[in-house]
Amino acid sequence: MTGGIAFSKGHGTQNDFVVLPDPDAALDLTPARVAALCDRRRGLGADGVLRVVRWAKLAGEPGVGEPADGVEWFMDYRNADGSLAEMCGNGLRVFARYLHERGWATGGPVGTRNGVLDTAVGPDGVSVGLGTVGVGPASVATSGDARVDGIALDVGNPHLACVTAADPDTLDLTRAPSFDPALFPNGVNVEFLTPLDGPADGGRIRMRVHERGVGETRSCGTGTVAAAVAALRHAGHSAGDVQVTVPGGLLRVTVEAGTGERTGPTTLHGPAVLLASGELDRAWWDAPA
Amino acid sequence: MTGGIAFSKGHGTQNDFVVLPDPDAALDLTPARVAALCDRRRGLGADGVLRVVRWAKLAGEPGVGEPADGVEWFMDYRNADGSLAEMCGNGLRVFARYLHERGWATGGPVGTRNGVLDTAVGPDGVSVGLGTVGVGPASVATSGDARVDGIALDVGNPHLACVTAADPDTLDLTRAPSFDPALFPNGVNVEFLTPLDGPADGGRIRMRVHERGVGETRSCGTGTVAAAVAALRHAGHSAGDVQVTVPGGLLRVTVEAGTGERTGPTTLHGPAVLLASGELDRAWWDAPA
Repeated sequence: MTGGIAFSKGHGTQNDFVVLPDPDAALDLTPARVAALCDRRRGLGADGVLRVVRWAKLAGEPGVGEPADGVEWFMDYRNADGSLAEMCGNGLRVFARYLHERGWATGGPVGTRNGVLDTAVGPDGVSVGLGTVGVGPASVATSGDARVDGIALDVGNPHLACVTAADPDTLDLTRAPSFDPALFPNGVNVEFLTPLDGPADGGRIRMRVHERGVGETRSCGTGTVAAAVAALRHAGHSAGDVQVTVPGGLLRVTVEAGTGERTGPTTLHGPAVLLASGELDRAWWDAPA
Repeated sequence: MTGGIAFSKGHGTQNDFVVLPDPDAALDLTPARVAALCDRRRGLGADGVLRVVRWAKLAGEPGVGEPADGVEWFMDYRNADGSLAEMCGNGLRVFARYLHERGWATGGPVGTRNGVLDTAVGPDGVSVGLGTVGVGPASVATSGDARVDGIALDVGNPHLACVTAADPDTLDLTRAPSFDPALFPNGVNVEFLTPLDGPADGGRIRMRVHERGVGETRSCGTGTVAAAVAALRHAGHSAGDVQVTVPGGLLRVTVEAGTGERTGPTTLHGPAVLLASGELDRAWWDAPA
């Protein structure tokens, strides 16, 4: 396996990624290669690919823009099907962990297709800033027989976060929940969550998420932020610090006070694990079998 | 990641495996570690683990027995849930590919919990001998509305191989097929296959398989052998050479003539791919997160 392609495998609350270190943008990362890498039978298997690249080397590519002052690294995130994606909150935590472990950065700002976002790597996990959240109208999600009131939230991608008095574990999320297609013409990620248990600073919720185009997942970073915002508002708070239990683990979200239409800055905090590293066989990379 | 645990990832017709080279049996390969490794979100993800170990180093462990003369390597196969398994035909092909790529063997006999089995690595794939197949009584499998006649076959593990005039692709295998529990008290792997198309030497079939305790899979080595035996017998032959298309790719099975109750020796031939190698993080190995 000489001349192979370096990789690492990691996950954040069981949202998992293949990391490809490519500082000089030398890799020809085609959609077909991404899809083969993420294939869980014939590839390494992952929810997406995190290409670690110097922003200056990608400048001018679609959605990448010009490097911001003092921001060296860009997270070139790809979905498992090979398509481009703007953001992945759990992916950004694994990305920051990788930079830290390689000694390429010790936290700080990272370029993404959703702008510059801040990261911090500590002994108990990785925090990433996910910016402000747009607060939209009330709406309703239907899962089986259950109709649940929710709120439309924009975390860079669309969410419908629904506080339910029933136990979210009793819902059948093997089918996509129904929603108002006029409000969400491009589909929506739907969260079902318990009401806030405890104070605004230090309360707890449990959440399950159905991601558009994917199905139920073990975790969703932006969905976790949306759920925390919805739980706080449902309890009458515009800001706070919420612990969120998802099927894949435990996350913490901080929401700062904002306007009626947008929250202040949000932060997502939780574990980010790198479990393996090595090389992809060059012949397989050239023609995935 | 210094001091990590060496691994490779490979697959045979999309039946995928983590290979752990452990010639001196130094690894403490607990069921919990196997399950974490095979977890498709927090581990590397695989259908099973192939530990590559010198037979003499494992001698005396349950199911391992004493090394046969001249047989250096033993395939210590584990299911994704951490349990021991006797055999895995596709796994044995990936195992033989690994020995060949490392220069540890160029084919030849390998010890397994199902006895000594022969392997041969060629430019167009890997062949493994899967021994003789026990031929049992006729029986019936039911999938949805479809009742299909089949035959009980013992390939080291139990199979019910059913030739269907309908297209196997039209069956719903999201639920387990029904079978006669008196004949298969420990469950059974069920194959649905097309009638033999062509002569006994060089005919073709298509097959889908539902593996007991797992569900539909992309490929099953022993199931492929069972399907070839059933297709040949259905066409009035006791021996032959059959190409089998499974969802994960193309395999070839050779069946030699035997008695009424057992076939002669069988051989499974097809691709075996090693796509990546590297090291597992030692801290993750010690406490999978």
